[in-house]
Amino acid sequence: MQCITLLTDFGGKDSYVGVMKGVIQGINPQARVIDLCHEVPPQDIHSAAFLLKVSYKYFPRGTIHVIVVDPGVGSKRKIVCLKTSDYLFLAPDNGVLTPIRQEEKIEEIVEVSRQRYFLKEVSRTFQGRDIFAPVAAHLSLGVNPSELGPKVSHFRDLKIPPVHFSEKGLEGEIIYIDRFGNLITNITRADLRGLEKKISGKGIRITVGGKEIRKINKSYAESQSGELLAIIGSSHYLEISLNQGNARKVLGLDRGEKLIIVFE
Amino acid sequence: MQCITLLTDFGGKDSYVGVMKGVIQGINPQARVIDLCHEVPPQDIHSAAFLLKVSYKYFPRGTIHVIVVDPGVGSKRKIVCLKTSDYLFLAPDNGVLTPIRQEEKIEEIVEVSRQRYFLKEVSRTFQGRDIFAPVAAHLSLGVNPSELGPKVSHFRDLKIPPVHFSEKGLEGEIIYIDRFGNLITNITRADLRGLEKKISGKGIRITVGGKEIRKINKSYAESQSGELLAIIGSSHYLEISLNQGNARKVLGLDRGEKLIIVFE
Amino acid sequence: MQCITLLTDFGGKDSYVGVMKGVIQGINPQARVIDLCHEVPPQDIHSAAFLLKVSYKYFPRGTIHVIVVDPGVGSKRKIVCLKTSDYLFLAPDNGVLTPIRQEEKIEEIVEVSRQRYFLKEVSRTFQGRDIFAPVAAHLSLGVNPSELGPKVSHFRDLKIPPVHFSEKGLEGEIIYIDRFGNLITNITRADLRGLEKKISGKGIRITVGGKEIRKINKSYAESQSGELLAIIGSSHYLEISLNQGNARKVLGLDRGEKLIIVFE
Repeated sequence: MQCITLLTDFGGKDSYVGVMKGVIQGINPQARVIDLCHEVPPQDIHSAAFLLKVSYKYFPRGTIHVIVVDPGVGSKRKIVCLKTSDYLFLAPDNGVLTPIRQEEKIEEIVEVSRQRYFLKEVSRTFQGRDIFAPVAAHLSLGVNPSELGPKVSHFRDLKIPPVHFSEKGLEGEIIYIDRFGNLITNITRADLRGLEKKISGKGIRITVGGKEIRKINKSYAESQSGELLAIIGSSHYLEISLNQGNARKVLGLDRGEKLIIVFE
Repeated sequence: MQCITLLTDFGGKDSYVGVMKGVIQGINPQARVIDLCHEVPPQDIHSAAFLLKVSYKYFPRGTIHVIVVDPGVGSKRKIVCLKTSDYLFLAPDNGVLTPIRQEEKIEEIVEVSRQRYFLKEVSRTFQGRDIFAPVAAHLSLGVNPSELGPKVSHFRDLKIPPVHFSEKGLEGEIIYIDRFGNLITNITRADLRGLEKKISGKGIRITVGGKEIRKINKSYAESQSGELLAIIGSSHYLEISLNQGNARKVLGLDRGEKLIIVFE
Repeated sequence: MQCITLLTDFGGKDSYVGVMKGVIQGINPQARVIDLCHEVPPQDIHSAAFLLKVSYKYFPRGTIHVIVVDPGVGSKRKIVCLKTSDYLFLAPDNGVLTPIRQEEKIEEIVEVSRQRYFLKEVSRTFQGRDIFAPVAAHLSLGVNPSELGPKVSHFRDLKIPPVHFSEKGLEGEIIYIDRFGNLITNITRADLRGLEKKISGKGIRITVGGKEIRKINKSYAESQSGELLAIIGSSHYLEISLNQGNARKVLGLDRGEKLIIVFE
């Protein structure tokens, strides 16, 4: 049973997602469709790329990951299909696939253009239904990506905010905020690992939103209820959390805000 | 694998939808249940009818479409099952099936009343669980609609707001607003087609919420980011949108507001 | 096809639920995963227990009910697996399984600790992905609960607010509020049944939020649109509702507010 995931900004208010599933079901009744997330903020490619990055590897080999966060729908932006050793990715060529280039060896990039795999009538406003869903369904039936259109040599990248390193420490920023109000930064466990020697036996001072945190927790439970804490989250990013509470609400921070780590 | 869609106002806050699926699963473990939408505003039959109208055709032949937006639950309102050449529809007889009469040839209308297809205990408040789910599951197992109760000759209609035509143009209204803030009107592509000769080579002036729009776009991308535009949407209705933004927020309009098109 | 339900506070904003499904799918592609509810307020064990209580029986025999509302994630709180005659329950040992003790004969309680059924890398913050999902998938493949870890003799209970009975009547409180604003109390049909003789032929006065209601409805439709009413809901709890409206909004009440019933 072939697995297709859907990652969109369609939300639950309307029937957009349901209709995509109807189209897939009509072409491949055996496909197993899994909702990755549909509450990506409208047109927010960065959030979609983040969610894709932390999620796609948890699906079985052969999964077809479909991303429809597509501010350029109906324009001349391309639709691309990427093949890696384990997965296929189908998305508008707007940078949302940047994490795949960072994490995987890309075996093939195809521009999706052959209309025989689309619905007969293709709208300029809902290509999730008219192109992405039927193409994904055909892929799940075994259609080879190379049949979808011409091979191309590249796809677009997002500018991912870098971590800045200095002698004293490093500076990152909040790149995603989850439902619990956890402030997820672009600083990874790997970024910190190189600094571990500096850390061991010494003090650390994390400054964010005018607050200071003096250590990196191993679990929420190391802190008191209601206490602000730093922790390496489940996707290996440094997160700022409030034990049993919502760090976003308490700190009033948004994506893009800086976080500074100094070793003392 | 038989497909059952669910269109309700149950939302995601509670377990109402999950419980319906549990009931279906217990009766027909092979049924494939697809969420069409559960965020219909409570008791909003018009929104449910709209979503049904723009969605049902995208599902495979044989799909059973179940609608539970049911302000009259527990009263003497009937439950009906409609058969068309391709689909079955199961819904309270409150007008939500109006679009099906408009679009399809109705082959059979049955009043759903035979308790042998219900759960043993039927509540007066949650018939999605006690009647709709088990009846849909039995239909998906091949039970004939005629076994559900007596044939009836009609079902109730909603009053759909009409488009008004004049010599100078036409007047419609907003009938649905989607997650992106697109203002979907009751004016269809077909309504405009008859006026195309008037349009060609002449000016068009669309007035809505105190703003004027001077053309009908073919894609969002024809407009600048942040610009208000008119477009024929994916369901062939004229929509007012804001490129990369939310027209509802900017115009502050709600369902029922008028839109006037004048040809100059 | 084995059925797994998921009841979490993960919401729809992120990909947490999708990732859990990916993990399950990778271990048992045949498992049928059903969302019971994901909008439990963050860390709200009482709401999760309520939803579990009113829902679990509607799923087929053999269903594996997974609950991940887990304020103690990463701490030393245990994870337990309960076996009853019809179901398996997998949850953190934080009281969320209290209703199962009330309603079922518990055949076995196991502390889930054998890492061979976990993902290889177990985080301290997302054990829904790393422990609950893979363990549930293995259970759905037929792994016996006793293989998950040592048997234990008890699991933790929540303190459920009791109904207070007096000569004149009884006093309960609001324990859950649903999407429609129905105020669900801890007073059950059974609580009232013992008092039925008192009720019959006599007056009843229900006081809640400064308002009085003088009868218990059999259906919403017995009241006028916009009228406040009391009704035994679909889960046999007494509920305060507003016909065609939202009782929570009108009364401005929250969980924990008292409701008094006096027989006159």
